[in-house]
Amino acid sequence: MAKVTGLEGVVAAETDIGLVDGAQGRLVYRGYAARELAIRYGFEEAAYLLWYGELPERKQLEELREKLAAGRVLTPDLRRLLDAMPPNTPLMNVLEAAVAALTDETTAWPPTVEQAIRLTGLLPVIIAYRHHQSNGTAWPEETQEKEHAAHYLYLLTGRPAQPAHVRALSAYLVLAMEHGLNASTFAARVVASTESDLHSAVAAAIGAMKGPLHGGAPAGVVRLLEEIGTKERAETALREKLERGERLMGFGHRVYKTLDPRAEALRAVAAELAGDDPWLDLARHAELVAVRLLEEYKPGRKLRTNVEFYAAAVMRAVRMPAELFTPTFTAARVVGWTAHVLEQAGHNRIFRPQSVYTGPMPAEADAGE
Amino acid sequence: MAKVTGLEGVVAAETDIGLVDGAQGRLVYRGYAARELAIRYGFEEAAYLLWYGELPERKQLEELREKLAAGRVLTPDLRRLLDAMPPNTPLMNVLEAAVAALTDETTAWPPTVEQAIRLTGLLPVIIAYRHHQSNGTAWPEETQEKEHAAHYLYLLTGRPAQPAHVRALSAYLVLAMEHGLNASTFAARVVASTESDLHSAVAAAIGAMKGPLHGGAPAGVVRLLEEIGTKERAETALREKLERGERLMGFGHRVYKTLDPRAEALRAVAAELAGDDPWLDLARHAELVAVRLLEEYKPGRKLRTNVEFYAAAVMRAVRMPAELFTPTFTAARVVGWTAHVLEQAGHNRIFRPQSVYTGPMPAEADAGE
Repeated sequence: MAKVTGLEGVVAAETDIGLVDGAQGRLVYRGYAARELAIRYGFEEAAYLLWYGELPERKQLEELREKLAAGRVLTPDLRRLLDAMPPNTPLMNVLEAAVAALTDETTAWPPTVEQAIRLTGLLPVIIAYRHHQSNGTAWPEETQEKEHAAHYLYLLTGRPAQPAHVRALSAYLVLAMEHGLNASTFAARVVASTESDLHSAVAAAIGAMKGPLHGGAPAGVVRLLEEIGTKERAETALREKLERGERLMGFGHRVYKTLDPRAEALRAVAAELAGDDPWLDLARHAELVAVRLLEEYKPGRKLRTNVEFYAAAVMRAVRMPAELFTPTFTAARVVGWTAHVLEQAGHNRIFRPQSVYTGPMPAEADAGE
Repeated sequence: MAKVTGLEGVVAAETDIGLVDGAQGRLVYRGYAARELAIRYGFEEAAYLLWYGELPERKQLEELREKLAAGRVLTPDLRRLLDAMPPNTPLMNVLEAAVAALTDETTAWPPTVEQAIRLTGLLPVIIAYRHHQSNGTAWPEETQEKEHAAHYLYLLTGRPAQPAHVRALSAYLVLAMEHGLNASTFAARVVASTESDLHSAVAAAIGAMKGPLHGGAPAGVVRLLEEIGTKERAETALREKLERGERLMGFGHRVYKTLDPRAEALRAVAAELAGDDPWLDLARHAELVAVRLLEEYKPGRKLRTNVEFYAAAVMRAVRMPAELFTPTFTAARVVGWTAHVLEQAGHNRIFRPQSVYTGPMPAEADAGE
């Protein structure tokens, strides 16, 4: 029977974009610790860094904001397209389809940063429009809001978001932008390697991210936080789960054997926002209790908080509905995907690995072929 | 600077589906020489073989024809969706978008043969509808035509196709169905490996096939055949090109160092149809002249006819417009993609290769992270 290797341990690309160093708990974006970027900078600065290779100066940052805003428009074409998609189409498939369909001669190979910025501006609009469509709620009036995370929250709710929520979501988006050659980023590079267009590469990546094995959706931890409910309940609720032998969602990571730098960064942001949002406060308290109890129940396992623990706290704080978790992750990761596609295009070689045939061979009559 | 390996020579999967043996000029589909399949069987038999692992019995073949026909419907949902796509969207992107959008709970993971059949039935409908839409021509009346290739030609022209054309196109579709881990098939397997849906995997594959490096579109050879025009002109026209140092399209292959078995098969089908279509006759004559002249002008290079040479003759014979070459290739290769996704799902492991970071490292302040 045919087996599949998953290419584990095989180097498929060199990249200047990101380093995932699980042993040392490091995540680096183009020479900067992702943790520091999330704490000190916003979505736009980190995106600029991934696309251009350096942090923006003030004028460059302003230009990026303008370009993102220009891409953030619900055009008549887009509205017509989204209205024509069947109501049962899953949102991730809607994103794939819209990204694939909104193409013309201006989006053809080679990929450009301008295309990447437009797509990044576009995704929150598609998500929010479809969200309102499904819920029968009204598409909000235009806003002058220029910050990406704030604009996204505005589109979802029709109200200006609280500064603490913008800050927390922005930090999450920065930390979700890039993570090496995961399956979605790899799919984007494979598609781009044929000299196909950037939109097709991103649509493929969205398709890969849709799969539950890709991970990154913190729904389980949100349920955990909701079960805990208050700081006072944390110890009892967590102890009960561990007594029943249940796994605590949000602890331990396949790659990060010590600390998950993304959890570190979100904890720091939550600490900075202490008192501003009860869910961020609850998460910090629950983490301390959980780590202590995990050491008691699973001594020596050193299970540390992973990014999903704090991502869940952010999602709950900003009242993001569960069905928008993976799409929101997508709206962040599109920055990494497009940076990888631009890099692939710079030194392209088509991906064409080998397979080993394990099926039967033709009978002798064909031997002379 | 970051380099890209393209995974050349790296085994990314074992497969029971197909063997591409370039050294011996063999292409095997599940134990059968593709050449024999194209000569002796039609589209449906070969598709059944790739999906189910064996050739169909009569009743199984009938059932497959029925299921393909059931998938071949321009539903109101599909029509509305295609009408809503911007007129400039390239046809390959339209295919991607429609495949991604026509999803619901019935198309979710795990992939099934039923889903694969429906998608295979669907692609010619999308291609033909969009073709009529672009050209302002009428969508044809429903037909009782059950054979896949005949139905496709009917949809494009609104008239029953000549038997010789159905035969030739059917042979082409069989030979284009599968070709190992090319970039599109690989992209489909990467997307499926996250447990995403079959439609997302196929949409990614379409995105990869769109890229010109993927190859397979015989537009250059069609122009060559049109330049030659008649058997009498063949020697003069080809000699002139070689005298000018031009490359002859349709000769030589990256993988097949001796014979391209797909060219062999299409030549045999063209010979069987001798006298039925002038373009198939011209191709057989032009090939003989070209091989003789290539030996004269490039002695020892042993440049043999590749699949595109005869694919071009088939495309010209059936009057396929050039903008439909890659989509038609797609309508064939979807069988291989879906077979690969089904195989991937049977023994799944997520594709997550390594990358080597070649960018700068953070300054010392972050060393403790």
